[in-house]
Amino acid sequence: MATAFQELEQRWAEIADIQNGLGILGWDQEVMMPRGGVTARSRTMATLHGLIHERKTDPAMVGLVRRLSRKGTKLTPRQRRAVALARKAVDKAANVPADLARKIALAESSGVESWRAARQQGDFSLFADELARMVDLKRELARVRSKRGKVYDALLDDFEPGATMADIDPLLNELKTFTQKLLKRVVNSGVEIDVSPLVGRFDVEAQRGFARSVVLAMGIDLDRGRMDLSTHPFCGGVGPGDVRMTGRYDPSDMRGGLFGVIHEAGHGLYEQGLDPRRAGTPIGGAISMAIHESQSRLWENNVGRSRPFWKYWLPRLRRAHPQLKGVNLEKMWRAVNCITPSMIRVEADELTYNLHIVLRYEIERDLIEGRIEVRDLPDRWNGAMVDLLGVEPANAAEGVLQDIHWASGLFGYFPTYSIGNLYAAQIMEAARKGIRGLDRRIEQGDLLPLRDWLKTQIHGHDQVFDAAKTVRRVTGKPLSTDAFRRHITRKVKAIYG
Amino acid sequence: MATAFQELEQRWAEIADIQNGLGILGWDQEVMMPRGGVTARSRTMATLHGLIHERKTDPAMVGLVRRLSRKGTKLTPRQRRAVALARKAVDKAANVPADLARKIALAESSGVESWRAARQQGDFSLFADELARMVDLKRELARVRSKRGKVYDALLDDFEPGATMADIDPLLNELKTFTQKLLKRVVNSGVEIDVSPLVGRFDVEAQRGFARSVVLAMGIDLDRGRMDLSTHPFCGGVGPGDVRMTGRYDPSDMRGGLFGVIHEAGHGLYEQGLDPRRAGTPIGGAISMAIHESQSRLWENNVGRSRPFWKYWLPRLRRAHPQLKGVNLEKMWRAVNCITPSMIRVEADELTYNLHIVLRYEIERDLIEGRIEVRDLPDRWNGAMVDLLGVEPANAAEGVLQDIHWASGLFGYFPTYSIGNLYAAQIMEAARKGIRGLDRRIEQGDLLPLRDWLKTQIHGHDQVFDAAKTVRRVTGKPLSTDAFRRHITRKVKAIYG
Repeated sequence: MATAFQELEQRWAEIADIQNGLGILGWDQEVMMPRGGVTARSRTMATLHGLIHERKTDPAMVGLVRRLSRKGTKLTPRQRRAVALARKAVDKAANVPADLARKIALAESSGVESWRAARQQGDFSLFADELARMVDLKRELARVRSKRGKVYDALLDDFEPGATMADIDPLLNELKTFTQKLLKRVVNSGVEIDVSPLVGRFDVEAQRGFARSVVLAMGIDLDRGRMDLSTHPFCGGVGPGDVRMTGRYDPSDMRGGLFGVIHEAGHGLYEQGLDPRRAGTPIGGAISMAIHESQSRLWENNVGRSRPFWKYWLPRLRRAHPQLKGVNLEKMWRAVNCITPSMIRVEADELTYNLHIVLRYEIERDLIEGRIEVRDLPDRWNGAMVDLLGVEPANAAEGVLQDIHWASGLFGYFPTYSIGNLYAAQIMEAARKGIRGLDRRIEQGDLLPLRDWLKTQIHGHDQVFDAAKTVRRVTGKPLSTDAFRRHITRKVKAIYG
Repeated sequence: MATAFQELEQRWAEIADIQNGLGILGWDQEVMMPRGGVTARSRTMATLHGLIHERKTDPAMVGLVRRLSRKGTKLTPRQRRAVALARKAVDKAANVPADLARKIALAESSGVESWRAARQQGDFSLFADELARMVDLKRELARVRSKRGKVYDALLDDFEPGATMADIDPLLNELKTFTQKLLKRVVNSGVEIDVSPLVGRFDVEAQRGFARSVVLAMGIDLDRGRMDLSTHPFCGGVGPGDVRMTGRYDPSDMRGGLFGVIHEAGHGLYEQGLDPRRAGTPIGGAISMAIHESQSRLWENNVGRSRPFWKYWLPRLRRAHPQLKGVNLEKMWRAVNCITPSMIRVEADELTYNLHIVLRYEIERDLIEGRIEVRDLPDRWNGAMVDLLGVEPANAAEGVLQDIHWASGLFGYFPTYSIGNLYAAQIMEAARKGIRGLDRRIEQGDLLPLRDWLKTQIHGHDQVFDAAKTVRRVTGKPLSTDAFRRHITRKVKAIYG
């Protein structure tokens, strides 16, 4: 069967080439494109997406993956895995009626427009009809795909292959419960953290230079990537040879810039750590969104907000910003770990962040499963904010309209953020066991042992193993909330008593 | 027939979308891409080129353009022109045997590699076999395409649609003859031009800032374009909404940076001046390479090396580079118009540049027509340099190996540079008649009347008219060497007596 498998690889390489083109065009759109390029770019990207869909649903491709999937086909285990991944992608493309796919594509682009307008006005009603249409289309898509079981699972699978509500519900429930308990402890402690080391006036070029040193110390290879500026930081491009990270620096608040860049560099290391020999094959690329997010979160939170990290980097940050002269390690460590319930997910601290996610997960799950409707959203959102975080949005812009995800059709994406946090803590515990004196190395500014360990354990395997197998291979256990609970409880106790 | 024509437009739009993607990917490759991106990028660009070829040679497309080309088909004149353009492109793609197309693509990429190595060593023999293979392939391609007539014409047509050796030979012969006469006059005059206003030490940021002011004054809209740095300046991207110009600044010589940017902005104005309503249709886009080059040359030479231009810009250049305090208008104008026979085409002045082109044209024409062979090239080149310019290359790197064109398969391209110069002078004469007080406006720094006139006369018509019709419409006459001769003779007399 070597020939049929080779044909699959050839066909897949062409799809990957187009996908890589989209990676650069998407980056350019956010980072470089002048305003006048919008129309041509949208057309080009839609056409390239269409070509990928055409290639995946080509009867020859569909026949090929079906033939290769048959029992008795002589394939190595890796080839079998590649065929399974290809077949899943092909089936996903082939099973969606063209008319539904077109309607969804249209709803996604008009959804973002109308969301933007509504958010600017702080008026959910301007977006409600559009969102309701989107939800109907996504429900239909999910129903088409899920032959049995829960429809939400069909959407979740786009971001977290193989994950189901049955897996996620208990994890996020546990996470919610102990986070709320810890948050109560924080709020009742009366401890006030001084964030003045991070909030004030900070030269933007100095911030950029410092962030760059950290990223280089993490082992990002700028011969195989770039760092640029963009309104919304992200990591894109074409892994592993051309990985593009962006950042954004606020002169009055250092947090978003520094931790944003560390976060994106965590994603970047994953992409740069993929095996170039598998690039463009069905088994090449990252495992799932949550595993990707675990890499960014591990660097941002488990490393970047740790004492050993700041032991090395604080003196360097002081040189970049001389006004920090009087700030000692303890003060800086507390400042970067300040916990405050707030309205906006992307500004949330390491603890309350997960409550923002639980809120969104429960709402989108119930919405897709038909237990609530779009008109119920603002009340449900505001009620949940009060329940979970004890704060109430003054308007929809700082409430239900704050994220672009639903407007652009991303249902099933949100939970991967928190699942990523859980993976991150569990993987970091394993790294501490796997790397002798890891914290001492971090204290010395030597971040490469951790990068190399992550590459050997995770990045370099591409999609040979799925998320569940990966976490068991790397940590010896299935995913649980234990490691994250230990990590965050230790921190909260140390800072808030 | 409205439906069939609409179908053609739809199919064409998809091809244009892919082409636009390539425009951005090509720009990114030169300006942004990290080294590690080479492999994936080459693959992606080859795949997208393949998709365009596939789309053009799709039997449905071939059938469609043939049907629409039939006599008696009810079409407006514009539609008829669009069909003719589409048919020509489709036939070109469809008539080349796939095997030959593949061999040429391979030869182009390996040709550039081997040319680079040979140039570095200054050793033509390292490149001769590869070039001979390329010439054979191009001869074959030309033979396949040219049913009757000269084979070189078939290659020329890729860059200058409709032009033939029969048109070009007399023009370039005349150009050669009077240029040689003028050059003799320059050399015998004994006049030495002081180029010190342009050669010395010039702050690169100040150079960049000045070039930017000039480009903005020319009317380049940076909401529909970008200016960046690259090793080899070019104008790319996606016209008319997203036009990307690059420049390169040398701290010891101001000429390449400034005139390079004006040149690329001339191309950029053409692209920005195209009618956005025609973007992505068969009739959309620039007419020919020579017409494109006429726009860059007109701004670079006929405007940028003119007295009225420097009357306005010299005081501003003095502010950017205070060491130019003592330089007056006459001195600057002479400096930017200094004529010196030299080895390298891209560094040549306005007069001798055309001799470099004549040399290349005659060689490539004779090569493709089979009158000489690759082994004859170095002798022929060096002999022609002595004949035409009175200088002899010390090695192949500053001789026959200096340009990338032949290595990358561009035969038929060179003459468009000089034809562009002829168009530029003829169009500039027409502009002086068409715009009241044009030189006075230029003296006042007001370059927009010229931009607007060029847009109305040329840019905004896309490919509605071909090059020959365009020059007749705009200047009232067919292309000749007269205007260029008048222009350059006046200048040479004024400076060299």
